Amino acid sequence: MTRILVINPNSSAVVTQGLRDALAGFQGATFDCVDITESPATIMTEEDVARAGIRVAERIMADPGADAYVIACFSDPGLDLARSLTTKPVIGIQEAGILTALARADRFGIVALGPKSVPRHMRKMRTMGVMGRLAGELDLGGVSAEDAGHSDEVFARTVEIGMRLRDMGAGALVPGCAGFAPRKRALEAALGIVVIDPVQAACAMALGAVQP
Amino acid sequence: MTRILVINPNSSAVVTQGLRDALAGFQGATFDCVDITESPATIMTEEDVARAGIRVAERIMADPGADAYVIACFSDPGLDLARSLTTKPVIGIQEAGILTALARADRFGIVALGPKSVPRHMRKMRTMGVMGRLAGELDLGGVSAEDAGHSDEVFARTVEIGMRLRDMGAGALVPGCAGFAPRKRALEAALGIVVIDPVQAACAMALGAVQP
Amino acid sequence: MTRILVINPNSSAVVTQGLRDALAGFQGATFDCVDITESPATIMTEEDVARAGIRVAERIMADPGADAYVIACFSDPGLDLARSLTTKPVIGIQEAGILTALARADRFGIVALGPKSVPRHMRKMRTMGVMGRLAGELDLGGVSAEDAGHSDEVFARTVEIGMRLRDMGAGALVPGCAGFAPRKRALEAALGIVVIDPVQAACAMALGAVQP
Amino acid sequence: MTRILVINPNSSAVVTQGLRDALAGFQGATFDCVDITESPATIMTEEDVARAGIRVAERIMADPGADAYVIACFSDPGLDLARSLTTKPVIGIQEAGILTALARADRFGIVALGPKSVPRHMRKMRTMGVMGRLAGELDLGGVSAEDAGHSDEVFARTVEIGMRLRDMGAGALVPGCAGFAPRKRALEAALGIVVIDPVQAACAMALGAVQP
Amino acid sequence: MTRILVINPNSSAVVTQGLRDALAGFQGATFDCVDITESPATIMTEEDVARAGIRVAERIMADPGADAYVIACFSDPGLDLARSLTTKPVIGIQEAGILTALARADRFGIVALGPKSVPRHMRKMRTMGVMGRLAGELDLGGVSAEDAGHSDEVFARTVEIGMRLRDMGAGALVPGCAGFAPRKRALEAALGIVVIDPVQAACAMALGAVQP
Amino acid sequence: MTRILVINPNSSAVVTQGLRDALAGFQGATFDCVDITESPATIMTEEDVARAGIRVAERIMADPGADAYVIACFSDPGLDLARSLTTKPVIGIQEAGILTALARADRFGIVALGPKSVPRHMRKMRTMGVMGRLAGELDLGGVSAEDAGHSDEVFARTVEIGMRLRDMGAGALVPGCAGFAPRKRALEAALGIVVIDPVQAACAMALGAVQP
Repeated sequence: MTRILVINPNSSAVVTQGLRDALAGFQGATFDCVDITESPATIMTEEDVARAGIRVAERIMADPGADAYVIACFSDPGLDLARSLTTKPVIGIQEAGILTALARADRFGIVALGPKSVPRHMRKMRTMGVMGRLAGELDLGGVSAEDAGHSDEVFARTVEIGMRLRDMGAGALVPGCAGFAPRKRALEAALGIVVIDPVQAACAMALGAVQP
Repeated sequence: MTRILVINPNSSAVVTQGLRDALAGFQGATFDCVDITESPATIMTEEDVARAGIRVAERIMADPGADAYVIACFSDPGLDLARSLTTKPVIGIQEAGILTALARADRFGIVALGPKSVPRHMRKMRTMGVMGRLAGELDLGGVSAEDAGHSDEVFARTVEIGMRLRDMGAGALVPGCAGFAPRKRALEAALGIVVIDPVQAACAMALGAVQP
Repeated sequence: MTRILVINPNSSAVVTQGLRDALAGFQGATFDCVDITESPATIMTEEDVARAGIRVAERIMADPGADAYVIACFSDPGLDLARSLTTKPVIGIQEAGILTALARADRFGIVALGPKSVPRHMRKMRTMGVMGRLAGELDLGGVSAEDAGHSDEVFARTVEIGMRLRDMGAGALVPGCAGFAPRKRALEAALGIVVIDPVQAACAMALGAVQP
Repeated sequence: MTRILVINPNSSAVVTQGLRDALAGFQGATFDCVDITESPATIMTEEDVARAGIRVAERIMADPGADAYVIACFSDPGLDLARSLTTKPVIGIQEAGILTALARADRFGIVALGPKSVPRHMRKMRTMGVMGRLAGELDLGGVSAEDAGHSDEVFARTVEIGMRLRDMGAGALVPGCAGFAPRKRALEAALGIVVIDPVQAACAMALGAVQP
Repeated sequence: MTRILVINPNSSAVVTQGLRDALAGFQGATFDCVDITESPATIMTEEDVARAGIRVAERIMADPGADAYVIACFSDPGLDLARSLTTKPVIGIQEAGILTALARADRFGIVALGPKSVPRHMRKMRTMGVMGRLAGELDLGGVSAEDAGHSDEVFARTVEIGMRLRDMGAGALVPGCAGFAPRKRALEAALGIVVIDPVQAACAMALGAVQP
Repeated sequence: MTRILVINPNSSAVVTQGLRDALAGFQGATFDCVDITESPATIMTEEDVARAGIRVAERIMADPGADAYVIACFSDPGLDLARSLTTKPVIGIQEAGILTALARADRFGIVALGPKSVPRHMRKMRTMGVMGRLAGELDLGGVSAEDAGHSDEVFARTVEIGMRLRDMGAGALVPGCAGFAPRKRALEAALGIVVIDPVQAACAMALGAVQP
């Protein structure tokens, strides 16, 4: 039986449960969703990312029997490190979310939890070589991964920012945190453009990668 | 029940059957694989692409009940046209194959059926904005979509070209035709790098796109 | 005697006559201006472009005696297709207009007829590899090719948009439709920057191409 | 009567006569071809370019009655300077040659007179923003502007280099000196790809620019 | 004893004295600061730059005993020319200032003296290949090199423009003239982001270049 | 007294002593060179880089009195992390070495210790946005940081690779490890192009950054 290990690099069980819910519709593999209890509840600072990266890689090495791995934090902590340690597929949700957006629309926009994440995402997108298709990235001023999916006030602000990104040319919106998962369809309805759940995007790629 | 229409824009039933085989492992949706009988057996020239594009779009409009559409020819004929006609997901295998390769390795290589396809792929990759991550594209000198998956001599040449692309820095290989589907795992074993089946990549993206 | 076939891919005889007027000052070749009666009066949608592309290519193949061909619609319908069918020069007015602007000013701006054209132009400009010199593209909200050259109200809006593009850094303006031809000098006077008539630009390139 | 001043920034009367011959087929304007007697016979070093630039600008300011100006040296000496001094069209043959090549083929190649010119051309092409479409640039090891058009031995080497550039993907060749003008059609016949005479390309653009 | 020739390409002794003050803290080399009396007090136009470039190169050739050369004008006049004439290090302050900003922050902004300089800087930054990290460039409307460092009214406007660039994403500010030298620390305090003195940046690079 | 902390992220005291020697000629600051005893003798794998990054940041936070920090490993471990923790200048030698090369020559080349480092450097250079000026990167097949500066056999291979990079267009060579420091001038003599010591380059930038 195919098993895909989905690692939430933060310690929020609410976010991890949101991952399980977002993946409930996939068939053909078990999606084993785990969090990392030593991490903070939201990965926000550079230090959070650096320390989470090492923990994620250790978690992957501790479970060599999985068929593929998904790193379910939008900063893709430990992605390059993990790829250097295993030949099995390792998918990061920032990469998968953005690349999937590129298969759905000409230009994409990103909503970030807070301003500290934006330059990190910019660096990553330059590394990915996809800046030519970024319509823009805007942030919510600093909210938690949990509130991204559960606070009505945060949802209202996300819609507002999504509208601005749409007006800047975004044909697809990529929410910049796994925590937004419960809001995908509501955002799509409010904005009238495609919303990519980066966790679903990453797990779909993982499913594709394990096909014979 | 979720249904995804997978359109082989050429008329080769052998290639269409190869698509069905490549998709046999996916669950959670019916993949309805059809070919276009008015098309030639291999889409090779600019004229093939232009005429196939209109036929693909007509085929999509004739089946409005599908949940998503995959255009299973590496020239992505009719992709922009189809997207302008329906709001449902329409995925092209060139885009999906390349974007998925970007989630698996730093640089990618492409094997094309023949030299006529190369400049068309180059234009498309510039349009996609991903040239910064192309290790190289080489071609097989002009072979059919069927032979790509069934001729041993073509397979041997594909391995040879894959090795050259690997030496040029490709960490993932994207075969430039749906017809290569039966060779994915054999190529991967011979080359020691990731081989992306662009049809599996596109159908995985389509599966992700139809999740609630 | 040198003869250059100038194809207006839409069916507007008013636009075709505008082409003739714009080309009246050129000497050394006959510019044979024709329209395509099966096309709509304005090429606006992706479907218009795809269908016009095949008609343009058929029209070119039906007149093999011309010395060069100009496709006088800003979406360059059928350009790559036609180039694959003849070795004679085939010039598209979007390409020629933008490339000529690059020889006149550091950055350029585009005025499009309507919002549907903008993403198509963006894709084309990425394909051309010239996005680094685009100051911006703005649209008139949806006007016809005929009104672009003949409506005073449309002219006033074109001036307004041209001023915004100039303020965004455009040193040359490229009107995004052959229909703007009658307005070149008036726009130039109103804006104080170079205005490129893309039809004149393409026909000048065609004249250059047929020199011994 | 329209008059276009074509300035050969070097002092070679043979090269200037080659310009006249290359332009003999154009009608509708007088092309006034002049050289600059204080310059060396070939513009080769950075110092040649810097000093020629000031002389070219002074020559343009000394002839304010011309309708347009063409700077017929592939280093485009004085182009930005001249544009800052007159609002009339000033066209450089490097820019015009390359931009015209982009309207004829997907990728282009350049043959330079000698190795000292190559880094200067590279800088210019980065400035122009067209490096994404350069197939390659190779040089003849150091030959004069006159020999480029008149020496049989240089012609043979030019063919050889053109073949290498064609194999590197060039669909159009741009000879990197006005002196190659007498060889355009012979090169085209030998190589089987489009050869752009940059002087004809620039003068065609100038003709387009002076249309009403 | 190591000696670095710092050439102020304009004729303002006030600006030259500002260079000396900015360099007072460096040890390990003599920084010989000179101006060019034939130049205007501010290098503003294309003609100023072209003529200053030749004078700068002549000044460098007249002092072959220096260990390195710094061209202390933000248009880097004569930089490529000087490099072609000597194998000793020649550093331009625009290049050094921008490259040093790239080592301090993700994106940078530029304050220019006036609007005429902006397109010239844009061309240079495209030539340098660093546009992907430019947050923006804004200008002061036309002020002199002296006022950049000595007028309180100009300082207030510089702060205002620096704030706008910071809001556009600049993590480092590069003042676009050697004349701003006396304001570095005051600007840094007012803006809260790194301010690069391009003259200090260039002289630091020159110091590095002459190390054994 | 100005003090700059130069951190060798590996544990090789020989490499650290090489840093001290390379910096002996700088004046105006104390360069405090330390290594990290918990690290391996050469930073080679992704895991080495990730773990070294956290140690480097901890070392920086443990010495808040320094005026600036230099991370003397070509993978720039911990650079973004350290910058998020202190407002003082933190300079990485990969960034500084490459950026300084851009101020000395049009295109640059890199010699890496081994093949595992190359894709990491490529990612970093894409992040930096400088790929347009890379002539090429070649590796020595896997040598230690110490041997880079002390083995004659490694030196001979470095010269050979440097010659290939020079032939690929590199006008400046950046050795991809702090350990090459003792070889700078010998490499420069053997190759005839500029060789940048990335540690000297970074320390020069640090000196510039601490000027008043």
